[in-house]
Amino acid sequence: MSYYRVFAVKPMRLLLIINAVVFMVWIFILFTNFNNSEDKISYIEEYEQKTFALAQSERRIIKLKQSLKNRYPNAIDYIDAHVKRDLPTIYAITPTYARWTQKADLTRLAQTLLHVPNFRWIVVEDSDTKTPLVTRFLKFSGLQYTHLNAKTDTNFKLKSTDPNWLLPRGVSQRNEGLRWIRENLPANTGGVLYFLDDDNTYTLQIFEEMRSTKVASAWPVGLSGGLKFEGPGKCENGKVLEWYTAWKPERPFPIDMAGFAVHLKLLFQHPEAQYSNSVPRGYLESHFLTGLKLQRQDMEAKANECSEVLVWHTRTEKPKMKHEEALIKQGKSSNSKMEV
Amino acid sequence: MSYYRVFAVKPMRLLLIINAVVFMVWIFILFTNFNNSEDKISYIEEYEQKTFALAQSERRIIKLKQSLKNRYPNAIDYIDAHVKRDLPTIYAITPTYARWTQKADLTRLAQTLLHVPNFRWIVVEDSDTKTPLVTRFLKFSGLQYTHLNAKTDTNFKLKSTDPNWLLPRGVSQRNEGLRWIRENLPANTGGVLYFLDDDNTYTLQIFEEMRSTKVASAWPVGLSGGLKFEGPGKCENGKVLEWYTAWKPERPFPIDMAGFAVHLKLLFQHPEAQYSNSVPRGYLESHFLTGLKLQRQDMEAKANECSEVLVWHTRTEKPKMKHEEALIKQGKSSNSKMEV
Repeated sequence: MSYYRVFAVKPMRLLLIINAVVFMVWIFILFTNFNNSEDKISYIEEYEQKTFALAQSERRIIKLKQSLKNRYPNAIDYIDAHVKRDLPTIYAITPTYARWTQKADLTRLAQTLLHVPNFRWIVVEDSDTKTPLVTRFLKFSGLQYTHLNAKTDTNFKLKSTDPNWLLPRGVSQRNEGLRWIRENLPANTGGVLYFLDDDNTYTLQIFEEMRSTKVASAWPVGLSGGLKFEGPGKCENGKVLEWYTAWKPERPFPIDMAGFAVHLKLLFQHPEAQYSNSVPRGYLESHFLTGLKLQRQDMEAKANECSEVLVWHTRTEKPKMKHEEALIKQGKSSNSKMEV
Repeated sequence: MSYYRVFAVKPMRLLLIINAVVFMVWIFILFTNFNNSEDKISYIEEYEQKTFALAQSERRIIKLKQSLKNRYPNAIDYIDAHVKRDLPTIYAITPTYARWTQKADLTRLAQTLLHVPNFRWIVVEDSDTKTPLVTRFLKFSGLQYTHLNAKTDTNFKLKSTDPNWLLPRGVSQRNEGLRWIRENLPANTGGVLYFLDDDNTYTLQIFEEMRSTKVASAWPVGLSGGLKFEGPGKCENGKVLEWYTAWKPERPFPIDMAGFAVHLKLLFQHPEAQYSNSVPRGYLESHFLTGLKLQRQDMEAKANECSEVLVWHTRTEKPKMKHEEALIKQGKSSNSKMEV
């Protein structure tokens, strides 16, 4: 019965529905008695009085709802969004590694994700074990999550002095996330896969864009590839007509990791598809997508026919820790009990 | 009447209350008629039937609330937090300036602030006019905000090649925010003033910590002053006993802009207190706080007796825009319609 669904769907509407149900039960009882009653006039009066009282009550509800909405516009939208049970779930894989800004970056990202309904965060640490910092962080994040770890092979690990593009990054971690999905979710799970970096910037809209992905979708990424934006450049009727890039345009997919999503079914249809450390620079995304037997023309255009930047390839600056480094050398590093 | 307050406070409880009110009105009408009625037996039956229907309805509400809470624990807390009308408001002044990552940084910060109840964001642009980008951004942010602008005097403006510490930053913008508060809020406004940078990282907890500030409060800031953390270093019974810094410890307040809050009343008690471009490096905060006639020992210790880092001095890396810069030189910059 459709009332049941509405019932579960909108808390504020719930108020109206509950009262409508109470009202209907009442009217029903009233009418049942009506026919048996000797004093119909009195019932009519009573009916009118109650109708009036209920109308007053309804007006009060509407007024309260309105004042709540005026005062806290987001609270309403947030609740509405959080109780749409029929939305496909987004499964987002995030590789992360220990560094000064790790907790800050994860904190900021988690605060974004708290706004996203039907979302599972698969966080994969580049470490031999799950660290206490990330374990504690996730536990108190308020998010639905899966915590994994996979250490990058030292042959493929960047040294702190290497430029960040020298080796592919996050390969083992993304593959571990893919393994978890394939081994732990039923092959017919409806849902969308996304790769979420821990220091990029994501609008809330991008999650709602990718959620409707049927096979695979793409959109422009801001501040990527040395350009204002990179990826789908011209789109019409949900198809990508042109790709915009200034670097290695011959790549099968000239796109950033933050610029595409795929339906989970593809992972089960192509169980071998994953990331690889042995691809030329800039080919991580293309290797994975071609492994799923996708071609450029398969990509569904998102972000209002690829006319909006809804995600940015940002990076957090490595902090200057001159004094801390000096203290560490002297064996007098800052209070180790302070988790930063 | 205490019901009225509860009424305004918890949307889920609202359901129960509304129904209780409807029920009471109904019982009242019922009993009014009861005395006049000839058929008391029929009324008693009706009364019992309705009592039963209402009890069922109440149980259904409780069950729905529970399932909502299980499924979306944060939604409930969020709504609860957003309707606590008696919380002091936080007034946060954020200086911002045009750059490649401005919209990304503002986006990320706004998503954090959306979780903070009773909050007004005073955004002050470093520009001659309010830019369309920030205007549009704020309009759709869902936040309570005040949009201002104040251009930094060119004598005090950093060149893009200067190191960021060469000149004080955000002075004119913070002063413009202070002016707005003093001219637009009544002097007895309860509330707390905070200076929020647009690329720092803030936990949600730090806002609840600062909200209870009576005069002025302080807490450690992560990744600040070249250290793991800087600011209050040892605290007991809500007082700061020691300050932790490695740089210019003689400063009246060895503290980062993100590490303190003051009660609004101080702004009205000391109407001249503001920021200054003519202070030595690292003395911005100290100049402002001593202008409010504060001393180190006045600061209330927050963040669990200054034992937790709840805010980080992060910076967003300047993106490498090699290809975009080349295109701009050729007069062929990327699609100007794309707002990034």
